[in-house]
Amino acid sequence: MMKPKNFIIDVDGVFTTGQFLYTEEGKFAKIFGPHDNDGIKLLGKLMNIQTISADKRGFGITKKRIADDMHLKLELVSEEDRLNWLKKNFNLDESVFMGDSMHDARLFELVGYSIAPASAFYLAREKADFVTSHKAGEGAVAEACLHIIDKFFKSV
Amino acid sequence: MMKPKNFIIDVDGVFTTGQFLYTEEGKFAKIFGPHDNDGIKLLGKLMNIQTISADKRGFGITKKRIADDMHLKLELVSEEDRLNWLKKNFNLDESVFMGDSMHDARLFELVGYSIAPASAFYLAREKADFVTSHKAGEGAVAEACLHIIDKFFKSV
Amino acid sequence: MMKPKNFIIDVDGVFTTGQFLYTEEGKFAKIFGPHDNDGIKLLGKLMNIQTISADKRGFGITKKRIADDMHLKLELVSEEDRLNWLKKNFNLDESVFMGDSMHDARLFELVGYSIAPASAFYLAREKADFVTSHKAGEGAVAEACLHIIDKFFKSV
Amino acid sequence: MMKPKNFIIDVDGVFTTGQFLYTEEGKFAKIFGPHDNDGIKLLGKLMNIQTISADKRGFGITKKRIADDMHLKLELVSEEDRLNWLKKNFNLDESVFMGDSMHDARLFELVGYSIAPASAFYLAREKADFVTSHKAGEGAVAEACLHIIDKFFKSV
Repeated sequence: MMKPKNFIIDVDGVFTTGQFLYTEEGKFAKIFGPHDNDGIKLLGKLMNIQTISADKRGFGITKKRIADDMHLKLELVSEEDRLNWLKKNFNLDESVFMGDSMHDARLFELVGYSIAPASAFYLAREKADFVTSHKAGEGAVAEACLHIIDKFFKSV
Repeated sequence: MMKPKNFIIDVDGVFTTGQFLYTEEGKFAKIFGPHDNDGIKLLGKLMNIQTISADKRGFGITKKRIADDMHLKLELVSEEDRLNWLKKNFNLDESVFMGDSMHDARLFELVGYSIAPASAFYLAREKADFVTSHKAGEGAVAEACLHIIDKFFKSV
Repeated sequence: MMKPKNFIIDVDGVFTTGQFLYTEEGKFAKIFGPHDNDGIKLLGKLMNIQTISADKRGFGITKKRIADDMHLKLELVSEEDRLNWLKKNFNLDESVFMGDSMHDARLFELVGYSIAPASAFYLAREKADFVTSHKAGEGAVAEACLHIIDKFFKSV
Repeated sequence: MMKPKNFIIDVDGVFTTGQFLYTEEGKFAKIFGPHDNDGIKLLGKLMNIQTISADKRGFGITKKRIADDMHLKLELVSEEDRLNWLKKNFNLDESVFMGDSMHDARLFELVGYSIAPASAFYLAREKADFVTSHKAGEGAVAEACLHIIDKFFKSV
């Protein structure tokens, strides 16, 4: 793979621990972690960063953190539409994709390079080109960013 | 065991981490995890899925997530009534049961097949037919669903 | 040691994970775990159960869970007064004490039998007669209860 | 290194787990842990303790716990200004610094002695003079305090 152009990141279970705090009123909070913003700032100078989420009910929470506070591009895309949306918007051969679910595992075969957090669902860990040592919500995105820089941009 | 008909799942400590966030006003929130909905959707085409909870005080939270948002059958059944309720409503030989407590461990001997999450109480882990590698609230139910499909429905 | 009469349990870091959720308004919530109520119900038939806490600011939260909802005896005792309070109210030789802090570690030498959760501060783990395999907030108290029954009450 | 004079501690990811609970309204809570106050009280008799944070959005939460409730000196210093601020206010040769991020890892080379929690970002763990066995939010600061006392103040 040549230098990749896009880093596409599923938010839940990658930026977050994947967990939801539920109250009687519904989804109340998600748990975001340290370091990821540091990594994104470094890699954002080299690649186009795009985040996606399939979580409709928790999208207000995701939007607040990812779009409003971290200023990242964020799109709500359902699991079913994900492959079509990715194909329409990106050259997948030039894209790195980071995800954690059994559905993400199938997308891993279609992108240039795939990354899963240490805490990903086992099928995603099995299929990913690289598995971080940090869990999601504990620095997995930051580690992925440094890994991408090391692997694809270091000899530049 | 032939193809099982029912998958009966205790909610707390299986769909959730088993933990409660308490404020001065009481039980405020429970922590639900990723992947489980993905697994349930796949297995729900093959088996009858039933969830149960003994947590009266937190039942409003459980209902919101499990019944309202995930659209699963949910019943509040106390620990004492659990065995009778199960016997009355299901043929236990045709049922898979997933639980995490010392009380669940005793039920494991009476059902067709039993599953415990990696984070279950040690007595439940010792008695279960299968222990997931994922902890509760981190994909244990999803892993259990795929395991059931692999074990009982794959040669179909 | 003969059959112990009292089981004295420090709440924070034993019934809870030891962690506090802080908002801008202060201590908002503590994290209680599964199984412990099951264990306490069994052991409560055999021993006098007493809980203590040194957490003044979070005492309203502790009281709600431990005293109001679990119906256990609870006393607010500062770290400094703890030894005197214990001596005044209990025959320490007949008491099992479960705690997790560096201060608790010093009390361990003065009681009949001492227990620490897997997640206790390292000094407490080093000094305890028994260390549970479960972490606090994940079943440590329940495991301690069953251990006490096995060790001191089984041959009865 | 002679007896150090200052213990400078980054708050997020050292006193806290590094995680943020986000609601739709933004940063709602941080997770602080047990034991750290016990350690700080012991070491505070021997050294000047200073805490710093780069988290502007969560500073109200940090201030409530660290400054108001624990009565520690706290300063909001951005990542960019951190080195200059440290140099201006402290003799770095006489200072112990505890941090968890990739930026902290670079500061480790400039201070007298450096400590990282077990849960720190991998680059910080690699560069630190000492890595605690406890994770952040689970007693890492307390362990660091006892380590400093053992290493630099014990023969006194």
